[in-house]
Amino acid sequence: MFESVLVANRGEIARRIIRTLNEMGIRSIAVHSEADADLPFVREAVESVNIGPANPAQSYLDQAQVLAAARATGAQAIHPGYGFFSENAEFARAVMAAGLTWIGPSPEAIVQMGDKINARNLMETAGVPVAAGTREPVTTIEEATKAAAKIGYPVMVKTAGGGGGIGMGVAHDEGTLAKAFDQASRAAARFGGTAAILLERYIERARHVEVQILGLNDGRVLALGERDCSVQRRHQKVVEESPSPGITPELRERMLAAAARAGAAVNYRGAGTVECLVDADAQDFVFLEMNTRLQVEHPVTELVTGVDLVAAQLRIAAGEDVDIDATPRGHAIEFRVYAEDPKRFLPGPGHVTAWVEPSGEGVRVDSGYEAGNTVTPFYDPLMAKLCVYGATRAEAIERGRAAVAGFTISGPKHNLPFCAELLDHPEFVSGDYDTGLVSRMRS
Amino acid sequence: MFESVLVANRGEIARRIIRTLNEMGIRSIAVHSEADADLPFVREAVESVNIGPANPAQSYLDQAQVLAAARATGAQAIHPGYGFFSENAEFARAVMAAGLTWIGPSPEAIVQMGDKINARNLMETAGVPVAAGTREPVTTIEEATKAAAKIGYPVMVKTAGGGGGIGMGVAHDEGTLAKAFDQASRAAARFGGTAAILLERYIERARHVEVQILGLNDGRVLALGERDCSVQRRHQKVVEESPSPGITPELRERMLAAAARAGAAVNYRGAGTVECLVDADAQDFVFLEMNTRLQVEHPVTELVTGVDLVAAQLRIAAGEDVDIDATPRGHAIEFRVYAEDPKRFLPGPGHVTAWVEPSGEGVRVDSGYEAGNTVTPFYDPLMAKLCVYGATRAEAIERGRAAVAGFTISGPKHNLPFCAELLDHPEFVSGDYDTGLVSRMRS
Repeated sequence: MFESVLVANRGEIARRIIRTLNEMGIRSIAVHSEADADLPFVREAVESVNIGPANPAQSYLDQAQVLAAARATGAQAIHPGYGFFSENAEFARAVMAAGLTWIGPSPEAIVQMGDKINARNLMETAGVPVAAGTREPVTTIEEATKAAAKIGYPVMVKTAGGGGGIGMGVAHDEGTLAKAFDQASRAAARFGGTAAILLERYIERARHVEVQILGLNDGRVLALGERDCSVQRRHQKVVEESPSPGITPELRERMLAAAARAGAAVNYRGAGTVECLVDADAQDFVFLEMNTRLQVEHPVTELVTGVDLVAAQLRIAAGEDVDIDATPRGHAIEFRVYAEDPKRFLPGPGHVTAWVEPSGEGVRVDSGYEAGNTVTPFYDPLMAKLCVYGATRAEAIERGRAAVAGFTISGPKHNLPFCAELLDHPEFVSGDYDTGLVSRMRS
Repeated sequence: MFESVLVANRGEIARRIIRTLNEMGIRSIAVHSEADADLPFVREAVESVNIGPANPAQSYLDQAQVLAAARATGAQAIHPGYGFFSENAEFARAVMAAGLTWIGPSPEAIVQMGDKINARNLMETAGVPVAAGTREPVTTIEEATKAAAKIGYPVMVKTAGGGGGIGMGVAHDEGTLAKAFDQASRAAARFGGTAAILLERYIERARHVEVQILGLNDGRVLALGERDCSVQRRHQKVVEESPSPGITPELRERMLAAAARAGAAVNYRGAGTVECLVDADAQDFVFLEMNTRLQVEHPVTELVTGVDLVAAQLRIAAGEDVDIDATPRGHAIEFRVYAEDPKRFLPGPGHVTAWVEPSGEGVRVDSGYEAGNTVTPFYDPLMAKLCVYGATRAEAIERGRAAVAGFTISGPKHNLPFCAELLDHPEFVSGDYDTGLVSRMRS
């Protein structure tokens, strides 16, 4: 096992990884920007290095600074968390070139899955269902119009290199296609470099359901159950749960088997997620994309399986054999506690004057802040993840209501009132909801 | 299900029960002494009633006050927690006579198990192993000497009505027997009323291992795994874990089957615990006593089984059918955080100036206090229970170290340094320890 690991991230996920490092007796090394010097993850790490100003481009996303910190502290490996460098193959290669271990899948797997067109084709070959769509990059509106006619409206237009909902748009006819294509093209130019665009048949009232996989050193790929992430605002997840209340055991079994095949197709090592869109009426699914890293919502899987996914990542990266019995049990729900207003979801940073977390049976809090800290506007507004576990979904919902009510945050705006509203919403309570739920709540 | 339940207790256990009541949509009613008015359990209950002065005899142990509060608030049932009235058959009968539901076993079961001589004989008849010992009350030193000679030294001398280690003593020969007998007699006179004393063969270097049972309305008695409670100071538990590191699967199976038989022998309903002494070398066990209530250490079982034991108690008391799949998974450890000095374990109440609980994966805290409260000398010094869960015992220990280090309490003295010391003690870490561990650490 490693003696020392540098965590190239911040906030709740850095703290969560550092906790497991400390528990495993591995020297934990934090890197932080000047703005984050007082956050708990910096204090809880055995060592910490200030790597620059608040602007992430000059600190968390500065390869040279992060690698210099690793050298200076004698780190043997780097854990990227999620976001930042986590799906950056170039950085992964630079880490390995520096003689360190990259705690994540191979750069090849990152590249293969990072290009959405490539991933789609690869999955089709591996026998994973994909939506009807384009197999080659679409570069002009004429090509797009022809492809859409063949696929059939509505179609989803997205960039091959995108992520997090950037540039995604639904077209219901030729008129809206032109607008969606234009939007995707501009997003691609702004964020992605390549102008490659793909079109896929759009499933109305779909559920977003994803499978946690774990690629072992002996080549096996385990599927550790699914997470339903259909509660989304602006194509971004807010609440996740496991198991999904919208799929049958038969569909679950097919999805888990497909996810394991997806991982095997790229010789996947470590933790990853195969995201799918589910047509709940037809009880069928298609591959959406694969995330080649730890997900924000991984605690949901940890609660129902009892597995520490970060420990598993570390063991796999260190070359160890991992033996995991991960039969899910009970029900878990995660609420992302964002520094944002609960009506329109606009960021609302500020100084934290009070912070009291709920505790007790079935409650887990992964937090990045505490009283006295300041939530700055430089980073993702995620302040904490409140997770609840119950023997049944009903018990988890009841526990969620109490835990949301028992979480005190003063200073920054926060979306706990939205979480409370959701927990009383008939669609969510029934379990019969889809990715349009939050829009309907706010229209 | 009940519409309203009164919790006849205080501190962490009242708060824990109120949490489940609130989650289940049951109106939670707290009763509290004047000294406890500011504690979290009072605030978190839907209603609360001040039932008298700090002295428990004039508040928590005043039957008339508690029943008057139940009448005034329209409570339909009373949950006694542990301690106080929880094993008081007279109070249970008074609750029922007032037309309320007693959330606990029948008064008959309480009485049958409350008398240790009776319980011993009953268990022997039910085919549960008991230590060689006296079947009739021993009242004179002459009888005791004769009995001890027959049983064989060393013998444990205890009172038939005692509990919590009161009056218990080990005799290694006739000389020490006189002393132990005298001590037990005086304790019986002081606490128990009856002067009945029993003698049992004493097992040296025993482990204290107990089985959680749940008696269902259809007459079945489930055994939900065991807890090892061998970390004791002055015959009182400090740290508990499940599964027990000191028993083989074969012994576990025999103990669980015996515990279910023990419950069935008294038509047990609800949550109870069958305590045993285990001879780890011989991999054999004898019945010690049965606790006819929820135990302090019940979260350990909740963590490994995923079952909410308080919810199960409520459902059983309400006459519901309960269906539970309670196959244990992983490993859980509980640390009782006492307001006491960590060297000699003497109570150290005080004003709580800082209180920050650890959180994150595998951490559960059941606390009775928060910053700004005062720990008074009137009650049990238990301030909180810190529980950790891991896939393996090693992971739970690592997590325990981090959680103990991450728990900040200022003001009262506390035994977190003892917990940290224990977690680094080779005997505890090896799992090969017995009830003498804490004495050896302090000698």
